[in-house]
Amino acid sequence: MTDLDERLEVLGDVPAFAALPDPVLRRLARQAEALVLPAGATLFEQGAMPTHLHVLLDGQVGLLGVGADGQTTVVEVLRPVDQFVLAAVLTDAPYLMAARTLEPVRLYLIDAATLRQLVEAEPQLAVAMIVSLSRHFRMLVRQVKDLKLRSTAQRLGCYLLELARQQGDPARLKLPYDKQLLAARLGTTPENLSRAFATLRDHGVRTSGATVSLGRPARLAEFAQPDEIPEG
Amino acid sequence: MTDLDERLEVLGDVPAFAALPDPVLRRLARQAEALVLPAGATLFEQGAMPTHLHVLLDGQVGLLGVGADGQTTVVEVLRPVDQFVLAAVLTDAPYLMAARTLEPVRLYLIDAATLRQLVEAEPQLAVAMIVSLSRHFRMLVRQVKDLKLRSTAQRLGCYLLELARQQGDPARLKLPYDKQLLAARLGTTPENLSRAFATLRDHGVRTSGATVSLGRPARLAEFAQPDEIPEG
Repeated sequence: MTDLDERLEVLGDVPAFAALPDPVLRRLARQAEALVLPAGATLFEQGAMPTHLHVLLDGQVGLLGVGADGQTTVVEVLRPVDQFVLAAVLTDAPYLMAARTLEPVRLYLIDAATLRQLVEAEPQLAVAMIVSLSRHFRMLVRQVKDLKLRSTAQRLGCYLLELARQQGDPARLKLPYDKQLLAARLGTTPENLSRAFATLRDHGVRTSGATVSLGRPARLAEFAQPDEIPEG
Repeated sequence: MTDLDERLEVLGDVPAFAALPDPVLRRLARQAEALVLPAGATLFEQGAMPTHLHVLLDGQVGLLGVGADGQTTVVEVLRPVDQFVLAAVLTDAPYLMAARTLEPVRLYLIDAATLRQLVEAEPQLAVAMIVSLSRHFRMLVRQVKDLKLRSTAQRLGCYLLELARQQGDPARLKLPYDKQLLAARLGTTPENLSRAFATLRDHGVRTSGATVSLGRPARLAEFAQPDEIPEG
């Protein structure tokens, strides 16, 4: 298998690119630059101009918001396969978030200017980008609703129920990152996160290191009120 | 001026459509259906399937998040000229938010299926939709950062500074809606909003009904830490 064939196959697995006709995918694959990085690496800083679209193939990446006083929070954690940050890359606007690797990652970088040209020339790629942008927009709508409508304990409950669903066991899950990061992702402090875990004990939640068991998922759902509209 | 000419002129003023070539704009204008509604009207419910893109020409519209227990919050308030909710319309996915008029509004409705067909056929329209989606995505990124990084008083301070900028007077502004709605938009309760206004008195903020004066905008900015990356 040539290097280009391999990149072609990998990009074909990216949901945003899956429906693209072969010639368009091939043009993207020719641009894709592989990158392997350890945990804790900064991919870009908030305020920088985007030079590449990042396609995450392995590992987790945190998109971080940095306040004017240097305080940092986690806006979103991305898992493979996904890409980021399309909105900045396609409109050539400064990143509103920094990106840092949370574990060793494997990425493809696609040149931003080339991607913008391709999007203007290839309606199917433009439609694929619209679908992907819409998905990320909707993730943030859910998060804003989560932050404004739910208590910290309810947010944690919804998060655990969704993780259990993703991991395929309704009664048991593994936290994908440490509690400090989890607190930031849920918009709270580590102290309040501990209190939220304590509150959820009444609803059957037990933790042991990174393993969480959900003794009574239905009761937890009744307390946490997860979204009724399933994720697309 | 014919009805079609008028719609053409109005749609040409919508930022998302401004760069479109005349024939594409004309096809959109032929689809545009005018709608005038009083304050308090529901445009669509959360969970409904989108049938139209809404183009807001006059008045304000609140995009509301509704919790499973019926509790309601304000995700965003839209002002003319803007359109909503592109992500749901273009991907034919259920609305994650309800839309309600906050004052008398004038709207155009554009048939969703027609818009999706046009986007697939017209690369320039697709690019225009990407730009608009990206702008709305970035608004939400800013809001998530705001909710996670700033105190309620800081959020209120940033909101007032931005309103003053928009209204063209750095020292004086008019709140565009009542304090209950403002509290929801800022992710807090009316009681905490009153406390935040009290905190901001130390930074030169005085209110009289819907009029707010900013006695010391620089000091307020130092306290509230508004974004360094200007809005696009």
